[in-house]
Amino acid sequence: MNVLVLGAGQLARMMALAVKPLNITIRAFDVGSGKVVDPLASNIVFGSLEQGIEFADFITAEFEHIDHQTLALCQASGKLRPSSQAIKVGGDRRLEKQLLIKCGVANAEHSIIATKADFDQALNNLSLPLILKSALAGYDGKGQWRLKDKAQAAATWHDIKAFFDGGEQGVKHAVVAEQMVPFDREVSLVGARDSQGNTVVYPLTENHHTNGVLSVSIAREINQALQAQAKQMFDSIANELDYIGVLAIEFFQVGEQLLVNEIAPRVHNSGHWTQQGADTCQFENHIRAVCDLPLGSTELVRPSAMINILGEDHVPNEILQVASTTLHWYGKSKRAGRKMGHINVSGNSEQQLASRLTQLAEILPAATFDELNPYVTAYQQQLS
Amino acid sequence: MNVLVLGAGQLARMMALAVKPLNITIRAFDVGSGKVVDPLASNIVFGSLEQGIEFADFITAEFEHIDHQTLALCQASGKLRPSSQAIKVGGDRRLEKQLLIKCGVANAEHSIIATKADFDQALNNLSLPLILKSALAGYDGKGQWRLKDKAQAAATWHDIKAFFDGGEQGVKHAVVAEQMVPFDREVSLVGARDSQGNTVVYPLTENHHTNGVLSVSIAREINQALQAQAKQMFDSIANELDYIGVLAIEFFQVGEQLLVNEIAPRVHNSGHWTQQGADTCQFENHIRAVCDLPLGSTELVRPSAMINILGEDHVPNEILQVASTTLHWYGKSKRAGRKMGHINVSGNSEQQLASRLTQLAEILPAATFDELNPYVTAYQQQLS
Repeated sequence: MNVLVLGAGQLARMMALAVKPLNITIRAFDVGSGKVVDPLASNIVFGSLEQGIEFADFITAEFEHIDHQTLALCQASGKLRPSSQAIKVGGDRRLEKQLLIKCGVANAEHSIIATKADFDQALNNLSLPLILKSALAGYDGKGQWRLKDKAQAAATWHDIKAFFDGGEQGVKHAVVAEQMVPFDREVSLVGARDSQGNTVVYPLTENHHTNGVLSVSIAREINQALQAQAKQMFDSIANELDYIGVLAIEFFQVGEQLLVNEIAPRVHNSGHWTQQGADTCQFENHIRAVCDLPLGSTELVRPSAMINILGEDHVPNEILQVASTTLHWYGKSKRAGRKMGHINVSGNSEQQLASRLTQLAEILPAATFDELNPYVTAYQQQLS
Repeated sequence: MNVLVLGAGQLARMMALAVKPLNITIRAFDVGSGKVVDPLASNIVFGSLEQGIEFADFITAEFEHIDHQTLALCQASGKLRPSSQAIKVGGDRRLEKQLLIKCGVANAEHSIIATKADFDQALNNLSLPLILKSALAGYDGKGQWRLKDKAQAAATWHDIKAFFDGGEQGVKHAVVAEQMVPFDREVSLVGARDSQGNTVVYPLTENHHTNGVLSVSIAREINQALQAQAKQMFDSIANELDYIGVLAIEFFQVGEQLLVNEIAPRVHNSGHWTQQGADTCQFENHIRAVCDLPLGSTELVRPSAMINILGEDHVPNEILQVASTTLHWYGKSKRAGRKMGHINVSGNSEQQLASRLTQLAEILPAATFDELNPYVTAYQQQLS
């Protein structure tokens, strides 16, 4: 079986590694170069997208910001899973908000801003503080603004206007303004839906962000009520999209209530722990769904955590001495803040996991992993 | 880091998959074609062994039957781990027996037979039944004879003589005759030793053979006394060889006593379950040792089993519905009896593992997996 992935980054690479044992061959379309590459060897396999489409039994995507012409070409082949519509929803916060409202799932109050008049109206209709996010571009904290006080309004609008003007021509730019949610924690649910409508979800993952970028994810013992709430929302959204593949939903948790923050129509950074901590990893389950193979069990094998490696291409080898620690580099060239790799670690209990996280935090350089020590300390305190 | 593996079969492929996340590149020397290939893409990377040696930071092997000229070339580069001596011991039962005796580890009484006179003497010195194994060639049940009764002696010698005559010219052929051990079960120990002399071993694995070929391996809850006995033998042998990498030892268990059957200076089929069932898999630990990275924990995550897929390139997709089941194909062309892939399955308890094995045995075709049903039935009975 042959699968073409739109996007040739670490997610395509980890899909390729996960399903090579199933004799499924992954080729990745590098949207930058317009070439199709082997994500495990990085060499060019086909010179054009059309050849990649021809080669593939199925086509999928590792990211949602794909130009609509590429999506249309793939959709027309009848091989694209999830559909171009589902991918577009993930790439446009306006469509995403429409979907969430249609599905009746809880999410933050919002307003769409394309003009100064919209901006002024949003300030009147919503309570501050606001978070304003580019509708089209940006994730990992890019294209986002926070507005805490009306005194900042003029400066914020100036920045947003500059962002619109600097963006692609001929595109209707907008930002989605949301009331900031005073959340207790951020969690995400990664799950998969197959073409028959079967769904499976992994345990909710607790996420910790640093400057808008995920730094640590942790899959703990399941809170059944919260898990059921998240699963219901997952099913609503995935069914509405007639979704095929892995879909991730990020939530704000406020008390015992989940509010959807955003959805990602793909495998997700907060699901990387599944490589060691779940019965079947998210990369394999995504490709299983795309290829009409049975979905694999998503059961938590043991409490597990993932630490992102940002902007660094070396970590001390000593981390490999910490039991159950696995290191995943993406083979990318070093750039400040770039997602270069991640570390997975598990424990037979949350206490053991916390103890191993503490060992890792002691070894990893604080300059790069500045949020790890406070996070681990807080986690230890929660458990004690 | 770049590693050249002598041999381009499934073991090199699984090493490449295991350490790609560590940014270690594996190239494999195909002894048949004399070319160096990328085991994940199968394309030729270098036209000669010399180029592969030049490319590599370290060299290792996936099998022990490597011609001595190749080994000498690799040894001379100073990059070969384990040493050519250790690899040769695994490829010559005469050297293996010398080593076991030198290390003082228990093993079956034996006699070396190169001539008819040796054969007659062995019949006098050893008690029947005997198992006679080619000293040089052969594993997975090839180049082996069983002699139960003196009446078979002439016919057996005739076969062995024909085997000698049909073998490579200019080589001193021999068979090692051993008294057959009335064992209770066959177990193996897979472990790793690094260049500093540190050793780690996985839990003893129980092995079930069909016609001399491994069909099922199972890693159960540890029997501490047996594990300690095996670890001591592992350390004796690995230290004597100043071994670097993963080394496997197959044992006969007689009561509470282990006798070494044979050793394999490499990752081993009976260690494939470690891909899902252990903290660090044998493939990663082998390359960690070879590359002077810290050895990873070998702890059993949960009871796990491996089922070999022999001579078959398709299994029902339904097996993927059995929780914790992973399928590993080797991408090889179909041939009767050939190791084509394996299935790993785990359980949170031995009971759960047995139940999942039962589900798999019901789905897998009995014609190909003929020994699985009786094995699983016996395992269920042991637990009840």
